Amino acid sequence: MAPRIEQLAQALLERQWMLATAESCTGGMIAAACTDLAGSSSWFERGFVTYSNEAKSELLGVDAPLIAAHGAVSEVVARAMAFGAVRFSHARVSVAVTGVAGPTGGSKDKPVGTVWFGFSVDGRLDSEMMRFEGDRAAVRQATVSHAVDGLIARIAATEL
Amino acid sequence: MAPRIEQLAQALLERQWMLATAESCTGGMIAAACTDLAGSSSWFERGFVTYSNEAKSELLGVDAPLIAAHGAVSEVVARAMAFGAVRFSHARVSVAVTGVAGPTGGSKDKPVGTVWFGFSVDGRLDSEMMRFEGDRAAVRQATVSHAVDGLIARIAATEL
Repeated sequence: MAPRIEQLAQALLERQWMLATAESCTGGMIAAACTDLAGSSSWFERGFVTYSNEAKSELLGVDAPLIAAHGAVSEVVARAMAFGAVRFSHARVSVAVTGVAGPTGGSKDKPVGTVWFGFSVDGRLDSEMMRFEGDRAAVRQATVSHAVDGLIARIAATEL
Repeated sequence: MAPRIEQLAQALLERQWMLATAESCTGGMIAAACTDLAGSSSWFERGFVTYSNEAKSELLGVDAPLIAAHGAVSEVVARAMAFGAVRFSHARVSVAVTGVAGPTGGSKDKPVGTVWFGFSVDGRLDSEMMRFEGDRAAVRQATVSHAVDGLIARIAATEL
């Protein structure tokens, strides 16, 4: 993890951008991985661990009816979380994750391992869905890795 | 860690209390440790990773002049963070940590390893200071352990 966090830090520092995270299923693991690196306060601004639906609405401005209609694990909610993380912080970049880490909570449509990602990078919002294999710990760890890789790729794609 | 998180979960569930975390130096590690346990959504409500001073003020209502006067790593700020975590959530219990994880940022008064803890349990607010040995990772891990132990002890001391 550490070399990729350094890559992420470098990409952000080069652009003088700050990062905010919005986490549901990973519960703070992405923020913890970022702040594991000394000096991370230069590029990591804040993290929202919005475990309850109320937290998603109150801290990130995710519409409660949107959650009711689509479920917390959905594309629209992941995008709204990423949007809110930038809106309610001083960051220019955010990643949001919401998924079914298991072992319970899975359904036919959204089995355990289903994770929606939202990314907001310099005003551009996009989303992605992944289905990870393994137990709760494996799904959570895979989610952190994918979030960090997704950030690096999207930031690298912007002009310096 | 896992057996103590289970103990914390049990103590909260018995009282039907929810937990919120407010983390600076641990950057989400306490929230991550809590949500590592399956079913944690029954007792973990939200986490604030308030890495920047602005985040401490904007998300937790910590007075900016208070931070300027005492520094982010101080008893008053730890208490204000713990108070804010309960005020700005639906939790009845909170823990807040703010410290110098290192390797830089230490001073004569506040050497690397200095961590202030704030606890708010059922309306009772208190604080504690620890000086942990070791590198950044060791200080952060010791902070997580002490936060969890502190929560368990304080919750256990309340009447069932």
